Order: sequence, then C-alpha cells, then structure tokens
Amino acid sequence: MALIVQKYGGTSVGTVERIRGVADRIVRYREAGHQVCVVSSAMSGETNRLDALGKEVVERPLAREMDVLLASGEQVAVALLAIALTARGVPAQSFLGFQVAMRTDAAHGRARIEQIDTQALRAALEAGTVPVIAGFQGVSPTGAVTTLGRGGSDTTAVAVAAALSADECEICTDVDGVYTADPRVEPKARRLGTITFEEMLELASLGSKVLHPRSVEFAGKYQVPLRVLSTFEDGEGTLITMEQDNMEQPVVSGIAHARDEAKITMSGVPDIPGVASKILGPVSAAQIEVDMIVQNTGADGLTDFTFTVKRADYESALDLLRPVREKLGARALEGDNSIAKVSVVGVGMRSHAGVATRMFDALAEENINIQMISTSEIKISVVIAERYLELAVRAIHGEFGLDGKPS
Amino acid sequence: MALIVQKYGGTSVGTVERIRGVADRIVRYREAGHQVCVVSSAMSGETNRLDALGKEVVERPLAREMDVLLASGEQVAVALLAIALTARGVPAQSFLGFQVAMRTDAAHGRARIEQIDTQALRAALEAGTVPVIAGFQGVSPTGAVTTLGRGGSDTTAVAVAAALSADECEICTDVDGVYTADPRVEPKARRLGTITFEEMLELASLGSKVLHPRSVEFAGKYQVPLRVLSTFEDGEGTLITMEQDNMEQPVVSGIAHARDEAKITMSGVPDIPGVASKILGPVSAAQIEVDMIVQNTGADGLTDFTFTVKRADYESALDLLRPVREKLGARALEGDNSIAKVSVVGVGMRSHAGVATRMFDALAEENINIQMISTSEIKISVVIAERYLELAVRAIHGEFGLDGKPS
Repeated sequence: MALIVQKYGGTSVGTVERIRGVADRIVRYREAGHQVCVVSSAMSGETNRLDALGKEVVERPLAREMDVLLASGEQVAVALLAIALTARGVPAQSFLGFQVAMRTDAAHGRARIEQIDTQALRAALEAGTVPVIAGFQGVSPTGAVTTLGRGGSDTTAVAVAAALSADECEICTDVDGVYTADPRVEPKARRLGTITFEEMLELASLGSKVLHPRSVEFAGKYQVPLRVLSTFEDGEGTLITMEQDNMEQPVVSGIAHARDEAKITMSGVPDIPGVASKILGPVSAAQIEVDMIVQNTGADGLTDFTFTVKRADYESALDLLRPVREKLGARALEGDNSIAKVSVVGVGMRSHAGVATRMFDALAEENINIQMISTSEIKISVVIAERYLELAVRAIHGEFGLDGKPS
Repeated sequence: MALIVQKYGGTSVGTVERIRGVADRIVRYREAGHQVCVVSSAMSGETNRLDALGKEVVERPLAREMDVLLASGEQVAVALLAIALTARGVPAQSFLGFQVAMRTDAAHGRARIEQIDTQALRAALEAGTVPVIAGFQGVSPTGAVTTLGRGGSDTTAVAVAAALSADECEICTDVDGVYTADPRVEPKARRLGTITFEEMLELASLGSKVLHPRSVEFAGKYQVPLRVLSTFEDGEGTLITMEQDNMEQPVVSGIAHARDEAKITMSGVPDIPGVASKILGPVSAAQIEVDMIVQNTGADGLTDFTFTVKRADYESALDLLRPVREKLGARALEGDNSIAKVSVVGVGMRSHAGVATRMFDALAEENINIQMISTSEIKISVVIAERYLELAVRAIHGEFGLDGKPS
C-alpha cells in the first residue's frame, strides 16, 4: 500500500463528465490498495473567466481581492470531485486553503507556501477518506486568502506530498509524459521513462508547459518522487528522479523550444562599469522579465548589449530604452520580435565535451544562423529566426539520437 | 454618523455594471458621514448554476460539499464588490464565512447562525474600511463551510447588524418597499412607510417575496431596525418597526396572496382521536409542507378533514393518502389544485372586531365563494378558486381603505 498524492489539472476536471472520470480513476487506485490524497485545479477556463471578471470591474483590481475571486474556481472543482467520489461509495472530503492550514506568505497572486498542517489530512486518510484539496490557494499569516500564481496547483500537490511524506506525487494531465521534444514540432519525439529534476527544471522554464518550474524545484528540494502522466489513458508516464551518478545518462535528454520571444540590442555602448544595470534597471523596474543576456566587447572600447524579453513586452521595453540610449550615448538601439529559442537539455552533457559543437554543426548544416548563445551546466540555448524553429528542433533531435519509439 | 448594515441581493450585483452601481451607492452613504458594513448575495443566477452543476454530478449530492460549492458564489460577489469600492478610493475588504467567524450549527444547507465574532469587523470599521461580508455562508463548529439556505443572506445581514448593534439594517433589493398588496394584482396598491415585524413576518411567510421570514424573525428578536428599499432608485423604502402601542394602527396593513396552492379533503372520516396524525403523518414524513388545516365535525360522528399543500406536491400527497383512506374507512378523498389563498394582515385587527366580517362581505359582494378559512391574531386567510384571485385582492384592498398614494 502506497500513499499517493494526485494532482488533476483544469482539463482533467473541465466538465462534469471528466470529473466523473477522475473519480473513477481514483477509485481504481483505492481498489489497488493505495491511499490517495487529491489536489485539484479549477475547471479549465474558470480562472481566466474569473480573472476577466475582476478586470472588467477595474483595470488594476486589488490583488488581495483578486485572490478571493480566483480561489473560488478551485473551491467549485473540489466540491464537485468530492461529490462524485462520495456518489461512488468512496468517502471524500474537500479541503480549502484555510481548512488544510495551507499557510503562505502574504504576497497576493504569487504567494509561497510556508507551512502545511497535516493533522486534518492525516486524520482523514486514516479514517479511509480521500482528502480533495483545493490547489493554488492558501491563507496568509493574517488569515487572508492567497493564491500561488498560475500553475500553483502543481506546487500545492508537491508541498502536500512532501508534508505527508507520500510515496509519489502524480501530476495527472492531458499529456502522457515528458517528451524528448514537442511532438507537434518533431513527430519522432518519444516519451522519456525518467528524467532528472534538474533537466525537468530546465525544460519547464524553457517553455515545456507540462510542469510548473516552482513545483519541480520544490519536489527536488524535498526529494518528492514526481510522475507526469495522463488522466485519460493508462501508462507509466515520466518519472522525475534524483540524479543517479552510477547510471549511464544519455548526453541529451530533450530539446525545448520557446516562441514568442523578442530580442533587443543596444550597440556601441561605452564600456564602463554599471552599464548593464543602467540598461536593465528600467526594464526590470517595469516588471518586464528578461531571459537571455549577452554582452560582447569589441576592440574599440565599445560594447554591444543584447537581451531577450517576451514578445508582448517588446514595444514597451524599446520605449523604456530610447531615453537610456541617449543618456549613455550608445550608437544604436534595435530589436527583432520574430525570434525563437531552442535548447538542448541533459545532465549527461556535463561529462561529454563537444555537445555545443554538435548542436551548432547540426544547425549550420541546415543553414540556420545562430543569433545568440547562452549556456548552463546542463543546457545550451540558441536564439534563431522564428521561421527556422521546427527545422532546428528536428535537426538537433536527430543529431543527438533522440528519434525513435518510447523508451 | 450612523452605522448601517446594507444587504445587496443577487439582482443588485447581477452584472459588473450593477456592482459598480452598488459601489457608487455605498460611496454616497460614506460621503454622508455614515459607517457602512456590506453583506452581499451571489450574482443572480449563480446559486442556481452551481446547484445544477452539483446535481449534474449526482442526483443527491453530499450536503457538506454542496455547501462548499454554493458558497463560492458569494465569494465571487464580495471580491468584485471590494474591488469596485477600492477602485473608487474607498478602502474595502471582503470577509468570507470563516474570516468573520460566522459560527453556525452543522446543519448543511440550512445552518443556523450561532455566534459572530465582531472583532475583525469592528477593527475594519474603525480603520475606515468597508467590510464586505459574504452572505448565506458560515462555518460549522468543526470548521466546515455551511450555508443558511435560500434567502440566507437576509439573515446574515440581520445577524451582523444585531452583533454590531447597528443603527439600521437596509435590505437593498429590486423593489422599493413593502406594498399594501402586490402591485401587479392591485394597481392601487401603495408602499407602506412602516410596518410591524409581526405583520412583515405574516406577509413574508404568505408569499410576499421581499424578505426571508427567518431574517424578519431574527430582526424582531434582536430588535434590529430593518428597512426594505431599492438599490436602483432613491427613496425611503419601508421601515419595519417594533409595534408601538400608543400609535394608531390602521386596521389592516396589507393584503397578501399565494398562488400555486392545492387543497386535499378526506371526508366522512370516523371521528376518533388520532385521526389527524394518521392523515398528516405520511404527508409530513414525505417532506411535504402542509399549510392550512381545517377540520369540521358533523352531527353524524363523521369528520371532514381538509388541508392545503404546494401545488407541486399535490399528486404525491394524493398518492400517499389513498391507502390511508382505505385503512380509516373514510368516505372520500378529493382535491382541487386550482385554488389560491388571500390574507389580510394587520396588528390593528387585534383591537377591531368585525374585520373578518368585512372581508367576507367584500368577497360575497363579488360572488366569490370561500372554501376554507383560517385565522391568527393578526391575519385572516381564505382559500378561493384561483380564477377569482385578482378580483378578491382588489375587493378587499378597497374595503379596508388601502387604495391611494404612497404614505
């Protein structure tokens, strides 16, 4: 008998019919002798509907009250799921943030879980009841309703699994695992049987929408075995594991990509200390997220500074930097909002030289020009023109021998 | 400066536009120097939508989880209202059941308020913040979400007003007060400036949908001055007051009516002790609400037993009573599902003889046959054929001098 925490995403509970299906799935786990603790997102579309409602009242609604508004979505889902389970003869009980004592900080809209009181959950489990916990929500030290930000239900599930010392945390979703690349881009992509936390973290932050990065970080920190699998089909999914040194790792585990990127270059900037912060300061002050940053200094004592932002932030970032360019006396400010980012990820590349070279060669063979390069210990990312994205992913996927059938 | 509790019904907060209007209305009270504490229902239609969702999962959903589901409706409304108020520069804060510590018993779906912790509300009011309290919901002794049943937000408002010793509790709704009769039936009906709690209680339970009877009872018990008025138009509305003995009361304050009634008669029943409970027992066991009950005994030692039920329960009540008739050896079981009830209500009739006679005469003049009569200290009800309903209301309204302009 194992204790399994299962998280169901919005698509999994998107209709009453699907909620019934989820209840059936939970019943099967119970019949196999497992204890199950459930975390649910809001029905798909609900969070967006509620968010739009709040913004219809006023453009910048109060963050505290937006949390009260948004948290109602998960409340509806857990009630319906508990009703469906009880109708199948399985005792179930919903738990809202305040009822779990899901204590967070007071940062409305992006609160962080600080503590979970497992007493009520353990009592329910011991009584044979399935706790159905509202994901995404918590309660601040002063008793206000908080939310964890988009994708927060994944984090709720991992936190609950860690607090209960669960045997596994299942992220039940509409895909059947983590793939070596996006199958819509590379039809030869195959499902990975296992992947390390570090790789998953890079993949998640690089735009593979399967898991929220914070939940992966959390799972790694508390060593919660995490599994991504399909709500709708049977299968093993992908197990996210601790790195095991004695295991032979493939050089590259997967290829991630991100569209919707834009790059901005300020060139001919006098290369004096503090230039980087003078350029990025106003951008981050405007809450614009900066991703890759590259700086090159030429022989003339002038430097070229390039960074990428989300495409939606492109125009406002340019607007912010025009006065900065004048002030710094830089030669030019230019940008490109039709770029994409492709990355290879793999803990195996730590011990294998030449991964970057193989990647760059594969792109060169397809005549794809590399505009920016950024590397980390287990990841190499390049920025290319968006129109080459699919071609690039397929070329690299083949180069590293990822094509084939599911492992 | 007065402390006013204002309750807004579902129609008043039915759209974002109307929520903005409610916020404006609250701002006007604040600008007039008052402290305002708000109680809100769910946006109109939401409670029905959520109720249907739960029943789509299973015909008889778990009451505990239905409360979690339904309570989300008020949660959305209070968040939106607090957002709208804050956008107008008025500090506001939503309070859910658990945050007010709106302690109820554990009777899910029809919980009763036991205690309110006013500490947080008072702190908010003293800080100049408008508390926006979710109506209809509370929290049980074990921390479960409860709801008070339909119309429960009225009760929440009265309970909050009582706990805060508010100067007045305003029920802001889509009508501009309590009328001497339903204006759709009697165009000469006029708005009452004041009405006593007892009269209001009779009117509410007789089908005047303005106020929930439990809230009126509550207000009477805790002597909370209650006012019914329009959210959408300016006006004094109707103040519901303690009875004042030194005031000259009109004989009759208003005429109430109820359609959708049906009557059932078992005639020729041997008149032995326990017959009434043998007839009504199976009916009430089936959760069918019985309204008027009349029993007459003739000279032959046989009795006729008649009672009224909601029209929707007519057929099932008849089905239940067929075997009872056989068992008792009664002569006949018959019924009529096209009847209506008309009542005159007024504390003034206590000290005035002949009110019944005047009412019966007025009906006789219109050739309206009276089928049943039932009286209480401040009310006389008659059952007539439904087709005479409008005629009866108008005849009685005129007889007691209620026609005219608003007081």
